[in-house]
Amino acid sequence: MSDLDLEEAGAVLAAEAARFASFGWMRGTSGNLSVVVSRDPLRLAVTASGRDKGELTASDVVLVDEKGGALGAGRPSAEAALHARVAALTGAGAVVHVHTVASVAMGAREPRGIAFADLEMLKGLGHPTHEVSVTLPVIANSQDMGELGDRLEGARAEGMPAVVVAGHGLYVWGAVPQEARHRTEVVEWLLELELARS
Amino acid sequence: MSDLDLEEAGAVLAAEAARFASFGWMRGTSGNLSVVVSRDPLRLAVTASGRDKGELTASDVVLVDEKGGALGAGRPSAEAALHARVAALTGAGAVVHVHTVASVAMGAREPRGIAFADLEMLKGLGHPTHEVSVTLPVIANSQDMGELGDRLEGARAEGMPAVVVAGHGLYVWGAVPQEARHRTEVVEWLLELELARS
Amino acid sequence: MSDLDLEEAGAVLAAEAARFASFGWMRGTSGNLSVVVSRDPLRLAVTASGRDKGELTASDVVLVDEKGGALGAGRPSAEAALHARVAALTGAGAVVHVHTVASVAMGAREPRGIAFADLEMLKGLGHPTHEVSVTLPVIANSQDMGELGDRLEGARAEGMPAVVVAGHGLYVWGAVPQEARHRTEVVEWLLELELARS
Amino acid sequence: MSDLDLEEAGAVLAAEAARFASFGWMRGTSGNLSVVVSRDPLRLAVTASGRDKGELTASDVVLVDEKGGALGAGRPSAEAALHARVAALTGAGAVVHVHTVASVAMGAREPRGIAFADLEMLKGLGHPTHEVSVTLPVIANSQDMGELGDRLEGARAEGMPAVVVAGHGLYVWGAVPQEARHRTEVVEWLLELELARS
Repeated sequence: MSDLDLEEAGAVLAAEAARFASFGWMRGTSGNLSVVVSRDPLRLAVTASGRDKGELTASDVVLVDEKGGALGAGRPSAEAALHARVAALTGAGAVVHVHTVASVAMGAREPRGIAFADLEMLKGLGHPTHEVSVTLPVIANSQDMGELGDRLEGARAEGMPAVVVAGHGLYVWGAVPQEARHRTEVVEWLLELELARS
Repeated sequence: MSDLDLEEAGAVLAAEAARFASFGWMRGTSGNLSVVVSRDPLRLAVTASGRDKGELTASDVVLVDEKGGALGAGRPSAEAALHARVAALTGAGAVVHVHTVASVAMGAREPRGIAFADLEMLKGLGHPTHEVSVTLPVIANSQDMGELGDRLEGARAEGMPAVVVAGHGLYVWGAVPQEARHRTEVVEWLLELELARS
Repeated sequence: MSDLDLEEAGAVLAAEAARFASFGWMRGTSGNLSVVVSRDPLRLAVTASGRDKGELTASDVVLVDEKGGALGAGRPSAEAALHARVAALTGAGAVVHVHTVASVAMGAREPRGIAFADLEMLKGLGHPTHEVSVTLPVIANSQDMGELGDRLEGARAEGMPAVVVAGHGLYVWGAVPQEARHRTEVVEWLLELELARS
Repeated sequence: MSDLDLEEAGAVLAAEAARFASFGWMRGTSGNLSVVVSRDPLRLAVTASGRDKGELTASDVVLVDEKGGALGAGRPSAEAALHARVAALTGAGAVVHVHTVASVAMGAREPRGIAFADLEMLKGLGHPTHEVSVTLPVIANSQDMGELGDRLEGARAEGMPAVVVAGHGLYVWGAVPQEARHRTEVVEWLLELELARS
């Protein structure tokens, strides 16, 4: 891919990150976002590590391969490997990873998974009606991305394009960055609701 | 009506939607807003479905009839039928439908209706004094807009231009978009108060 | 006073109101702000009634006398009389009245007054140290401004330039609009703290 | 140091303060920020006292010595002495002091220190893994900066570049203003999490 295409992907991710940062979901330099720029071979543009997520520019992005390894300049987060794994596993074209208080609080309260039922907001995850029961999986945290990926693969639930990593945060995916954004907003809304009514 | 008038209505709705989105009341692509553009026959401009409510433009609007059916280009939400029903039933010129955490949390806590009394903020709904008791009706959710409309019609309470749909969100109406906005803010404030003090 | 001076006062109040509105403290069209423009005879500029407090312009202001009666164009809120009374009673040059969730929630929890002690933030109300105990008075609401003023006069506490009106909101005063703003922020912070830790 | 350098430091602090103020962490005129401008002798630029922290300009800054005494124009906060002490003690190049509701609420709940364990966000404080247990010290408040400094020095914990002052707020430090900002966001996130899940 050309540097120009990478910078375009970087501009999209910077705008998405600024949005999430304004919600307080990327405090410190936490979280990272990615977009698939080539499917075969699998290549993703991932936000650069260690930067303020509200101040990214189009060039604060790293090109990585299917293992999350850097293919050019810049240092990707170790979590780039998990982004690549999610993209390969689910076919998603965009992955969002944010650190929200509600996801960690609810993950601690419901370590075997957080159940949602009879909520209109579930239609925002693609369900045709509110009359469904779905579970947001909660997996144990790890610094080993292979281990974390295995847990995510094993826990993945039908009709729920998201996983909570306990003590850590939220992974959400979609076909394109805007879909991943909307699903992230829906999942976080559901978590805030459960937190508020418990 | 001319396309120009429809676009003008779209510009007003886009501005109102951006405001509600900034409050976190339209997460994902949830919620929709409408304004009556003709009373006889009843015609409404309704926000287009599936769009980010913080990024609407003046053309992201659909003209619908008294059944919520599209009269031109664009896809209205299924909920357009409920907007039209509310407008016909109440004489309102503008309808707001938002997905707020407080409305769903309080609707779950008080499924037979949420009572408010002795609150100055009730004057923002047209009451001449705080010394009143009013109930915000809570109705069961449905994907059938006829059913949902019947429930809304049956539950509608004197002095309360709003209804909570359980597990779903809030409908509020007023003479014009600005009045509907102010009433929405008042009802949501009342719900946040009840949530905070319980 | 000249129309020009009144417009200048209006510009200051509009900016202050926009700030408070952005915090969610003036939902609907609630609350009002004033500034003393002449001490003898007592004259205040008060924000116009029924307007969105985030969208005021310099001309959305009314000149009132020591009884809160309008001296020119525009309709003041009935509460203008209470603003004038506070200014006369305390010597304050600016009065802030906002509808915050925390003030109404805490006023309901502690109807005999809300005690604060050993808090550094109390220095923001003029105390030289955190080692003080002060009480924020809570008075019953009324639609009769004379009655409400009598209650405020009777309840006023040393070292606390503010009063909670139960089921209604918060009155805070200071020498100038900026001092009234800072004191409002301090009192609201104290209320949010009590709400969070109880 | 030249006036120009001081103004540059002031511009950085003004931008940082505006950011924290927008989060509601510097209500009233509370809190102050500093940056080390010379190490030997120790000299810090500290935000001027009594100003609205969302409206600082580059010149709202005071140069202080290792005791927090003013070296030029402007009135520093009494807390400037504590900023200088933290910089001398820890080698930090930037110190943040904010008044957050969560720090005071959690400091009251856990007066012997607030423990955090198994949280990915701890990596934002320099830990290589989430599998650590660290304690955020809580010290008693005092108007005597020497006493407060002694308490801070005695309570300082390994791997935690922050201290809560009970009934007061939060001190956080880092090598440069941006690191101090990110650590402040991380510590506040941890406090909000504990508050939400308790």
